[in-house]
Amino acid sequence: MADRKTEILKATCRVIGRSGAHDLRVEDVAKEAGVSPALVYYYFDTRGELLSRAFDYADQRSTEHTMTHIDLDAPGRERLEEMLFHEFDEAPDVRENWVIWSEMDAIAIFDKELLVAVEKRSANWTKIVADLIRAGQADGSITVDGITPEDVAERLTAINDALGTKLMLGMLDRGTVERVMHDSIEMDLGTAPSQ
Amino acid sequence: MADRKTEILKATCRVIGRSGAHDLRVEDVAKEAGVSPALVYYYFDTRGELLSRAFDYADQRSTEHTMTHIDLDAPGRERLEEMLFHEFDEAPDVRENWVIWSEMDAIAIFDKELLVAVEKRSANWTKIVADLIRAGQADGSITVDGITPEDVAERLTAINDALGTKLMLGMLDRGTVERVMHDSIEMDLGTAPSQ
Repeated sequence: MADRKTEILKATCRVIGRSGAHDLRVEDVAKEAGVSPALVYYYFDTRGELLSRAFDYADQRSTEHTMTHIDLDAPGRERLEEMLFHEFDEAPDVRENWVIWSEMDAIAIFDKELLVAVEKRSANWTKIVADLIRAGQADGSITVDGITPEDVAERLTAINDALGTKLMLGMLDRGTVERVMHDSIEMDLGTAPSQ
Repeated sequence: MADRKTEILKATCRVIGRSGAHDLRVEDVAKEAGVSPALVYYYFDTRGELLSRAFDYADQRSTEHTMTHIDLDAPGRERLEEMLFHEFDEAPDVRENWVIWSEMDAIAIFDKELLVAVEKRSANWTKIVADLIRAGQADGSITVDGITPEDVAERLTAINDALGTKLMLGMLDRGTVERVMHDSIEMDLGTAPSQ
């Protein structure tokens, strides 16, 4: 039964990635998942709850996806860089996630329920980056003095989000995006120690 | 007649600021502007054109608003800071602009016509910041060496956009937003020369 629920959430993400969240109908999700609308409503009381849970699911999937792609034993600095650069990956679900977050950010302005989910995701993302900076300070891969990990995390996630969005929309090329991200990391955390 | 057109664009911005662009109906804009739907269609062939022109109008209004609030004879560095901090202003039309840009960014993913307007606005905003950096280098208010104004502009506008959005959504307090923006400027452009 848990798998059915996950299949419905995956289908919701695909529908949002294709045509946005705003006009999303529960019927379209049911069709995409190959189930009845009644089953969707069995798991999710309202369309709002379905959207909110799909949002959480995309966030969790993204974190897991990243975790499988980075070396968890690597120094904090290296993990941080892999994590930020992973967001520019061309994998279909990375793009799908950008679309989902963009949609959710826009809708959250007018929807308190979604705003809570957006805030949670944003705070979580900033915390992951701040924790990796602290890990890097502890393991010696980040040696710069006098930084506040939370403020650096606000800055690096902001730059990462904006660059990722512009890359997805075709407004910046990959070379520029990677160069600006790389320079931003060096500016905040100093040059990387030689491996 | 030009005033009528502007009034319709202002009304469109108010409607978007209140309830988003996605469900915006030409009838609602007409009612808000106190004109007939036929008059709206006299000036704007389609709903898409109305949205796209309202977007340009919001952008132009924002630039003009900023220009009236900054001292055009001040050094480049000072103008740059005033411009970036102005985006955190609590004035109603600044908030309305954040909502409009958030809506347009989200819709542009699925709407090529709007994507062109979004790209234009984004490129224009980055260019304004890059030009102010060059002005600061020329007038001696920015003395840091070896920077690429365009890359710095990408970084500072990214941080500015993300912080402004989080401030508007209540996800960050004003103190944090202003501190992170201030530190980001100093990190890229060095400390400000004493006036």
